[in-house]
Amino acid sequence: MFPYLKDNYGNASSLHSLGRKSRQAIEHAREQVAKSINAEPNQIFFTSGSTESNNWIISNFNNVLCSKVEHHSILNNPKCTPIAFDNLANTIHKQRPDLVTHMQVNNETGQIYNIKEMAEICHKMKVPFYTDSTQAFGHIPIDVKDLNVDGMSLSGHKFHAPNGVGILYLKEPDKYKPMLYGGGQEKHLRAGTENVAGIVGMGKACELHNYNAETDNYLLFLKANLIAFIQNNIPDVMINSPLETTVSNILNVSFKGIEGESLMLMLNRADICVSSGSACNSGSLEPSHVLKSMGVPDDYIYGTVRFSFSKFNTLDEIIETENVLKETVEKLRGE
Amino acid sequence: MFPYLKDNYGNASSLHSLGRKSRQAIEHAREQVAKSINAEPNQIFFTSGSTESNNWIISNFNNVLCSKVEHHSILNNPKCTPIAFDNLANTIHKQRPDLVTHMQVNNETGQIYNIKEMAEICHKMKVPFYTDSTQAFGHIPIDVKDLNVDGMSLSGHKFHAPNGVGILYLKEPDKYKPMLYGGGQEKHLRAGTENVAGIVGMGKACELHNYNAETDNYLLFLKANLIAFIQNNIPDVMINSPLETTVSNILNVSFKGIEGESLMLMLNRADICVSSGSACNSGSLEPSHVLKSMGVPDDYIYGTVRFSFSKFNTLDEIIETENVLKETVEKLRGE
Repeated sequence: MFPYLKDNYGNASSLHSLGRKSRQAIEHAREQVAKSINAEPNQIFFTSGSTESNNWIISNFNNVLCSKVEHHSILNNPKCTPIAFDNLANTIHKQRPDLVTHMQVNNETGQIYNIKEMAEICHKMKVPFYTDSTQAFGHIPIDVKDLNVDGMSLSGHKFHAPNGVGILYLKEPDKYKPMLYGGGQEKHLRAGTENVAGIVGMGKACELHNYNAETDNYLLFLKANLIAFIQNNIPDVMINSPLETTVSNILNVSFKGIEGESLMLMLNRADICVSSGSACNSGSLEPSHVLKSMGVPDDYIYGTVRFSFSKFNTLDEIIETENVLKETVEKLRGE
Repeated sequence: MFPYLKDNYGNASSLHSLGRKSRQAIEHAREQVAKSINAEPNQIFFTSGSTESNNWIISNFNNVLCSKVEHHSILNNPKCTPIAFDNLANTIHKQRPDLVTHMQVNNETGQIYNIKEMAEICHKMKVPFYTDSTQAFGHIPIDVKDLNVDGMSLSGHKFHAPNGVGILYLKEPDKYKPMLYGGGQEKHLRAGTENVAGIVGMGKACELHNYNAETDNYLLFLKANLIAFIQNNIPDVMINSPLETTVSNILNVSFKGIEGESLMLMLNRADICVSSGSACNSGSLEPSHVLKSMGVPDDYIYGTVRFSFSKFNTLDEIIETENVLKETVEKLRGE
């Protein structure tokens, strides 16, 4: 990224050589991103992140059905109606949506959903299907052709690219209107001078941090270790991210009778950074809508933290975390 | 910016120490930006650039009157109607807009407009007034309290900050809805994980590159030199950026009977980067709407280039540009 911040800072829409270098870098990144999800480069549009991507696609529709566990960038949109997905065909028949959307992986618990099946049901009913894959990239293999989704969002910062850059994949871009009007950037579908350095960083991150079975196994090993420790050493806990149904990089745990935020702050003193709820929702006093929908009792929900792992974490760090965690939970419980 | 890309990459909405460092950096940048335009920090909202800022504010209104020389991020918006501003009060009376907008400085010619007067007229008619100041920052002093505008956009890359970051200033933020729904970022008015490094860079750039009379005089000197050379040495030209009415960093010139794009490409071979039209519109075959509205004839419009200066340019570079320019125009004219 650094060359595009320091020397090659040309506006990618300028036709002079500085601008053309930026343009080439962007188009190279577009190919890297496309390849990583088995899309075509002309189906990839750069945005400021999944929040923008989600808002953009929804701006093209009027009656959107979504799950109750979506990220707030979908759930808070006035055009979206949360529904249960257990009888999707029937609900579509009754509510006649013009778009159905369901995340591929939940951002709080890491739960993996069968969006291929959902897309099939929608398409049988002639309704397009969109997925927010922000939490999925790098942790499960993504193939947009196989999944047959009509659109997908990704955010760079979820896979070691910088904050503030993301994509919208559109299966048939010609069918869509922009949300941001202006210059002719991104084939007239997303105006605005491009964040060249961010886009370059995201392209490379797609190459470096795409799904890899070896990394996945390593993270599973770390996660399994932490789950086993918690289950064997701390009473009154709920593991909200079972190994079998969730991605390997997220572990959401509820500790009965304590405050998740206090736990987070005390772990932080030992240089262990965890999240209470999702980052996007942290500081909020509302109990997690995701955990509520899973039936986690309130006295557990309030004592929830989310651990995130990456290949840069070590087993030593996990063991240290386990020791500090046990001590801290006991302290907070007044034991 | 680099620490926020390499080590302090925390999500600014996370409550752990890495996140809090990002949060503090963003709030510091907000103060730097606010100070540079005499706003309060709570009136500054970070976006991906002026295009987003302009689209956002317009999304809050239904009937927007704008000038015919606006940037396309306003002009292309379906809610905007271009009008002549010479009898503004009368037009407002007839068309009953809910917002009036006019850029502070034109992006193609550098023309400076009296937006303070426009804001006054609008306020007398109880209509809010918004300005796109993207091309103004650093080149004329900006004081939002004195101008008394209801909103203003800025883009970082126009004043040596990176591409892909900007602001929306809102005089009374409580009156507005978000365009991007989602997490609670930016006081629930602009969701999405923040582009921390970009925001930090823009804050610093506001401090470093705010209006400064000495810099302005230096750029005026470079520009006056280039104008004098062109007028004395190249026939059939129109200077579309007269010294008296335009900012010092832009010089738009039309050369009769040649193609601006060919001129741009040939100057580029001598490492002189100029723009044909505005960057946002380059590659377009449409003649500039701005020059058309100024009454520049078509055979001049097609031969237009825009020179941009900064304090990093030298007089030697200007003199070299002059020599190459004369030679190139003569060659293109077959002289």
